[in-house]
Amino acid sequence: MTNNASVNEQTVADLEKALRHISAIIKQKGREILNDYTITPPQFIALQWLWENGDLTIGELSNKMYLACSTTTDLVDRMEKNQLILRVKDPKDRRVVRIHLLQEGERIIEEVIAKRQHYLKDMLVTFEEKELSILEKSLIKLQHEMREE
Amino acid sequence: MTNNASVNEQTVADLEKALRHISAIIKQKGREILNDYTITPPQFIALQWLWENGDLTIGELSNKMYLACSTTTDLVDRMEKNQLILRVKDPKDRRVVRIHLLQEGERIIEEVIAKRQHYLKDMLVTFEEKELSILEKSLIKLQHEMREE
Repeated sequence: MTNNASVNEQTVADLEKALRHISAIIKQKGREILNDYTITPPQFIALQWLWENGDLTIGELSNKMYLACSTTTDLVDRMEKNQLILRVKDPKDRRVVRIHLLQEGERIIEEVIAKRQHYLKDMLVTFEEKELSILEKSLIKLQHEMREE
Repeated sequence: MTNNASVNEQTVADLEKALRHISAIIKQKGREILNDYTITPPQFIALQWLWENGDLTIGELSNKMYLACSTTTDLVDRMEKNQLILRVKDPKDRRVVRIHLLQEGERIIEEVIAKRQHYLKDMLVTFEEKELSILEKSLIKLQHEMREE
């Protein structure tokens, strides 16, 4: 896609800045939330993908996490040792191994996401219902545009 | 601040998810942009703060970056060696040292931010002008709420 000349430069600058600062604050808040858990930030991201997408191969998870397969393998090894996930062979093609979220992994990811939602909800108290539903629509649209790139 | 019961749970869940995924994509895009430069991601964040706020003490920069002062000192040492910044004594109180952005640091941060804006602009081509100005207002408001916490 090419740049749309009609997009106001100042609006883009303001949006880039707001998204950059919001991302930094959310990253820090996310780290604080993880302090109460035994998982690391990359483990949180891996659990998040398995929770949202179901079982994934090492290759699929590596793509989603922008990591080399060897790095993802190390990550998965530690998570398997901690009984958060399990490697499962595909019954139709036993050469294919998928990573499966275990109950403890699911419990942790659901608790951490609930805490992140709770924090965000607190940050949104001054927003009106209509404002929030427009923001929700716009951010989901932006996320899809970014994914399709 | 306490939770506002009127904020719809599904809306909060959707917003948390969209912000989490957008942040991850922006983080990755930011890393790709930095591949063309000699600075690291933490150096980018430090330059960003100096560019937006002007001269800062090590303590002020540490707070903004959520880092220990010793970590910030190491970061500043490397950036001073690379002639991106300079330590300057306050003329009114020579015990106070501030970090000052040098021309090369300014050139790099402005180029990197411009590339981030260009990427975001491409992601926003399908948005209408009105949609964008509402999104801009909402994200700036969210950023302020998060900062005031």
